[in-house]
Amino acid sequence: MTPPDVLEAFVGLDGVVIDTSPLAVESARADKSGHRSNSAPLAVAYATTVEGVQELMRLATAHQIPVVTRGGGSGLAGGAIGQDGEIVLSLERMNQILEISVEDRLARVQAGVINSDLLAAAGEHGLWFAPDPASRQWSTVGGNIATNAGGLLCAKYGVTRESVLELSVVLADGRLITTGHRSVKGVTGFDLTGLFIGSEGLLGVIVEATVKLLPISPHPVWTLAARFGDIGGATTACQSITGAGHTPAIMELVDSISLHHIHNYLDLPTPPDAEVLLIAQADGSDANEQIAIFAGLCEVAGGSVVTSAEGPDADALLHLRRSMHPAMERLGQVLIEDVSVPRSQLGAMFEEIRKIERERAVLIPTVAHAADGNLHPNFIVDGDEVPDHIWDAADELFRRAIALGGTLTGEHGVGLLKRRWLVDELGDDQWQLQRDIKSLFDPQGILNPGKVFTH
Amino acid sequence: MTPPDVLEAFVGLDGVVIDTSPLAVESARADKSGHRSNSAPLAVAYATTVEGVQELMRLATAHQIPVVTRGGGSGLAGGAIGQDGEIVLSLERMNQILEISVEDRLARVQAGVINSDLLAAAGEHGLWFAPDPASRQWSTVGGNIATNAGGLLCAKYGVTRESVLELSVVLADGRLITTGHRSVKGVTGFDLTGLFIGSEGLLGVIVEATVKLLPISPHPVWTLAARFGDIGGATTACQSITGAGHTPAIMELVDSISLHHIHNYLDLPTPPDAEVLLIAQADGSDANEQIAIFAGLCEVAGGSVVTSAEGPDADALLHLRRSMHPAMERLGQVLIEDVSVPRSQLGAMFEEIRKIERERAVLIPTVAHAADGNLHPNFIVDGDEVPDHIWDAADELFRRAIALGGTLTGEHGVGLLKRRWLVDELGDDQWQLQRDIKSLFDPQGILNPGKVFTH
Repeated sequence: MTPPDVLEAFVGLDGVVIDTSPLAVESARADKSGHRSNSAPLAVAYATTVEGVQELMRLATAHQIPVVTRGGGSGLAGGAIGQDGEIVLSLERMNQILEISVEDRLARVQAGVINSDLLAAAGEHGLWFAPDPASRQWSTVGGNIATNAGGLLCAKYGVTRESVLELSVVLADGRLITTGHRSVKGVTGFDLTGLFIGSEGLLGVIVEATVKLLPISPHPVWTLAARFGDIGGATTACQSITGAGHTPAIMELVDSISLHHIHNYLDLPTPPDAEVLLIAQADGSDANEQIAIFAGLCEVAGGSVVTSAEGPDADALLHLRRSMHPAMERLGQVLIEDVSVPRSQLGAMFEEIRKIERERAVLIPTVAHAADGNLHPNFIVDGDEVPDHIWDAADELFRRAIALGGTLTGEHGVGLLKRRWLVDELGDDQWQLQRDIKSLFDPQGILNPGKVFTH
Repeated sequence: MTPPDVLEAFVGLDGVVIDTSPLAVESARADKSGHRSNSAPLAVAYATTVEGVQELMRLATAHQIPVVTRGGGSGLAGGAIGQDGEIVLSLERMNQILEISVEDRLARVQAGVINSDLLAAAGEHGLWFAPDPASRQWSTVGGNIATNAGGLLCAKYGVTRESVLELSVVLADGRLITTGHRSVKGVTGFDLTGLFIGSEGLLGVIVEATVKLLPISPHPVWTLAARFGDIGGATTACQSITGAGHTPAIMELVDSISLHHIHNYLDLPTPPDAEVLLIAQADGSDANEQIAIFAGLCEVAGGSVVTSAEGPDADALLHLRRSMHPAMERLGQVLIEDVSVPRSQLGAMFEEIRKIERERAVLIPTVAHAADGNLHPNFIVDGDEVPDHIWDAADELFRRAIALGGTLTGEHGVGLLKRRWLVDELGDDQWQLQRDIKSLFDPQGILNPGKVFTH
């Protein structure tokens, strides 16, 4: 059958709305990475029920039609974008919170629930959902799970994986399985829940999840901002805070180029040339004492410190960090990288970034989740396509992060944009084993083909 | 070749010591579950190097010899016992702590390191290793990982999975892969680290691990013991503590039959008939305030409470709980079950256990990790073999735990003893998918055959 004929078969399905409008298929060509596919997908299929997803996958299997599962479209690696011949399966209309249990501290949600909607609903019960990607306001819980999303709070509260108890997954052929447990503990068989988390739509379609919620602390959060004359002082401060056994809720490092542009964006006075900013938050019953200790360690490392209890002053400090992305976007198209290194290598990784800048004559404004060693180096690009010399610089970045004991992606995933480096990090044997797992779950190769693995 | 000829090939390997002495092969027939295999394995192979394990697996693949990987032999499900025709690969001589990093809060260890040895070594650096199975003094870190072991501290500090960063694994054919990252975060490809954790020796031989360590808190731990006139008051207290958003470091519930036998074992006065004991610990900067709140909630639920700061009094309270197993062992051979239910179902599960006792005319003394809903019902058996009527009662137990949203094993694993119930919990489709994963990693079926899956 020709593609339009095949699509005909999908149009009548219960629980799925097929949209072939230019608006729908064009927007499914891109995500927040800046990357666009070369062509539009056949259609966007909006699922409204689990059974609809099952029917769609049965048909897709029968007709060997590739299916790209998509949540809020907030990905940063091109992992959920569609192209010619593919159906983009959007779960954003499956957005029901099915249950919140205070006693069991969990929520059962459809995959399309927006992260911040779950946060708000949990808040009414004195609970909160820990995964806090910057895309929280528009990314879906299913997408957070499919990418094992991180955020600012990971060093203390873990990545998405630590918040997932149970998954309902539609397999490539339309069968539905449930993995994991509603109970806190469970070791029955292999951990397929963990395998689906971060699998970027390659192994199945996550349609529902049971996730952990945490009690909201009654104690006020304390915030610290420290400005340092150079990056070395700031990374020393970070390493002495974590090295002394402290776990800040948040610890964000903004390098001097980034800080310059953020000040510019916010119409603040231009900071001194090499000045960098460290923002830390502490929570819990001794938040105030923790912040005082962090402040002391920052001052020892040469930082100039202000601290603040919860309120507008603290919000203003964090707003500086949150303005990073809009400040970068004013400069051009932004390619956000995502290397992660052991905490002890944070300073070394910043040095490597500065070396790459000099060697490649390219600026790499960088922010870091400093408590867990995850850095986001930004490349500013003219136009849609990332030019080769930028990819060459990124290539250097990945190699040096891996050499420091780290990884090419801490929380954004591989998607399309990092697949060519995957084998460098995994090694041939593990890469092949992972490909074999993919083939086992998806023998026809219809689930998000071409993502994560090169051929 | 006949088995002795095959064994000849293994004898000359570097990095492996082959032991065919009756003492070695007889002890490898059993673990701490009380179960013994019908026959002795061919040999115990003590590996001393990673390369030795690789060579052994290459030969095992060449000759299709089944290999059962074994740590401290502390398993409770028969998962690491050997039988006729099998080689038991013991990692207990690979017991080197390769590195402890304070800055990165991690340790790199060989798989055979005893859990409490790692704990002691970490302690010298102000750090500790959270997984605390009751077997801590003699179980290995590799075994903890292979079973995803739990313990008393899981509700607050997670199971073993939450403490593992990176694994070195020898595959069935002798190739060595390293999964995961030394960095805190990393999402490159599928989470094979998670897949190996809890895989009970079926997917590969875990030879080294990088594990997270936590800073030792400078604040004293507080302990509470509450005695209740019946189980209902105690489970109500547990559920009101966790339901109010508190997370005790430890919360252990000892039912009346267990308490009776523990008192007996410790030569304490016999407690009132239906009396049950709840022991809770709080840690952190507000441990004292937390314990005061727990005490209040226990009293509201009818408990009679004592509290204690760190010291001999607190140790004595916890000693009551730790005497459960020796107290049971005085009564006969003990089959320790391991169901886990959502926290809200703790009271309901205790009611189900009492119903099964009445229906089946069998006593089931039970202790529970009450903060996470994991119960250990004990069956006392005469002789080595578990009689059918006890398995029938256990069968009822598993079915009711699953019906309450729980699992047949919270932390001990499936091994030999629970494999016949695996499909009930996973469902046919997931069971088959898990078997297919096993076949992918081990196409000849030489890694711990017959465990976890029935044929």
